Amino acid sequence: MDRQLIQEQDGELWTVEGHPDIKLSYKIKRVLAEHQSPIQHIMIADTAEFGPVLVLDGVVQSTSKDGFIYNEMITHVPLLSHPNPRNVLIIGGGDCGAAREAAKYPNLERIDMVEIDEMVVRLCLEHLPEVSGGLSDPRVNFIFDDGVEYIKRHRNEYDVVIIDCSDPIGPATKLFTYKFYQNAFLALKEDGVFSCQSESPIYFSHVMRGTYVKLAKLFQETRLYHSVIPTYPGGLWTFAYASKAYAPLAGGTSKWKEYGLGTKFVNEGILRACFHLPEFIKQELEALGSE
Amino acid sequence: MDRQLIQEQDGELWTVEGHPDIKLSYKIKRVLAEHQSPIQHIMIADTAEFGPVLVLDGVVQSTSKDGFIYNEMITHVPLLSHPNPRNVLIIGGGDCGAAREAAKYPNLERIDMVEIDEMVVRLCLEHLPEVSGGLSDPRVNFIFDDGVEYIKRHRNEYDVVIIDCSDPIGPATKLFTYKFYQNAFLALKEDGVFSCQSESPIYFSHVMRGTYVKLAKLFQETRLYHSVIPTYPGGLWTFAYASKAYAPLAGGTSKWKEYGLGTKFVNEGILRACFHLPEFIKQELEALGSE
Repeated sequence: MDRQLIQEQDGELWTVEGHPDIKLSYKIKRVLAEHQSPIQHIMIADTAEFGPVLVLDGVVQSTSKDGFIYNEMITHVPLLSHPNPRNVLIIGGGDCGAAREAAKYPNLERIDMVEIDEMVVRLCLEHLPEVSGGLSDPRVNFIFDDGVEYIKRHRNEYDVVIIDCSDPIGPATKLFTYKFYQNAFLALKEDGVFSCQSESPIYFSHVMRGTYVKLAKLFQETRLYHSVIPTYPGGLWTFAYASKAYAPLAGGTSKWKEYGLGTKFVNEGILRACFHLPEFIKQELEALGSE
Repeated sequence: MDRQLIQEQDGELWTVEGHPDIKLSYKIKRVLAEHQSPIQHIMIADTAEFGPVLVLDGVVQSTSKDGFIYNEMITHVPLLSHPNPRNVLIIGGGDCGAAREAAKYPNLERIDMVEIDEMVVRLCLEHLPEVSGGLSDPRVNFIFDDGVEYIKRHRNEYDVVIIDCSDPIGPATKLFTYKFYQNAFLALKEDGVFSCQSESPIYFSHVMRGTYVKLAKLFQETRLYHSVIPTYPGGLWTFAYASKAYAPLAGGTSKWKEYGLGTKFVNEGILRACFHLPEFIKQELEALGSE
């Protein structure tokens, strides 16, 4: 990695997020931890606007101020769609935010979190408490393994599978393939529910469309939903929901209140609203159907 | 204005949007127009990612690729909330996008657009056709005047008033005051409907809350709604809806189809969804009520 990950300007430090045509930088007050793992460059930096943030290979992944939005959206939508989830598999999710949200469900017996890079988890547990905090639930099993390989060894086992990964460049590329989704399908029980992030409809609309098409080939129900991640480029972000049996939110949005999920972004209104896609996304998906 | 508005780096040109703690820059292919008006610095730059964009005093206001989102959200929500709007006043809206959306309503007889800076309108009509294009509707009256003064001279006249202004720094500051909202209230007929942009709940949450409180003192109905503006910092953006008589969308979302509004972001689902606020915003507004 020879690319510059921090920039000094007028005596201030800034993150450097390098897309070819846009730049997004956050002022750093202090670098809390930095580590080059065998997988990637990991930095936790305390920023002026978003507090401590996790940065992988220069790309902001999760922040203390807005990390809850992504983690709540990727976790509660599938968990509230399954009427009675007993176990969940999270692939990725190294900031521990998805596992933390899942641990709010009293009826879940097992939360398997398969993260390829143990150092991400260690650093987030230590330096990113706003996202990972309080995750000492005995139902959470940390498994440090390649999710692509792990999922091949599990069949008909999980009620819910959540793919919480970074962009399809570098280590996460394989987590966007049809083969991987097929293995996720097989790892689910016959009424299993699936969610993943499906990227920006502005900057990575081909990934969004590709994810939708691949999942729709496998699952009975496939729907995109959307949210806003303020620290991701373009803000507007999509997620994919898929299930072998259930329509979105079939488990009942009232469980949000019943379980006292204590969320900061998600509520019953947002859960219903997130499946109403902007017209241009709807039209892109409809065009796929007629290809 | 001594601050740098364009940056050259490695032979490339970039916009410079300077918030104290974050930076957001777009690669410029070509500057299409640049003008220092008596009011502000105006630039229209053709960017690699968002096509031609309008930049005022260095801040990106409207882009060819995503400008439709803001303009559709600020225009169609109030117009679809009034059961039979005959005239509309737009204060600001120099990119002409709001007027263009309003011109899609067959029953509107008059669209008064009061923009303080004639040069913004001229440059957008010439260089920003994706946003302003085709705005040759004879019902649109361009009035180049200070909206703050204009609105004082109009009483009980408009069905709908839309405040489409830039951030509350510089020329737009007065458009966020209680006094101005009071004059907007008085300019509306007894069943009038109002909308304005109320800023980011992440970066300018005090403005969002202030706008809501001021409007709630005046109007029978006040609600915030939200959307995503990819080129605004943080993406997540709020708008305020207020009316002397009508609940949001009382005019009927089915008119979206009936009129063939041809929108790219708004549809019936989005219109209903946008009033479901994220939990942290709901809680902030509820806390205001108990202060």
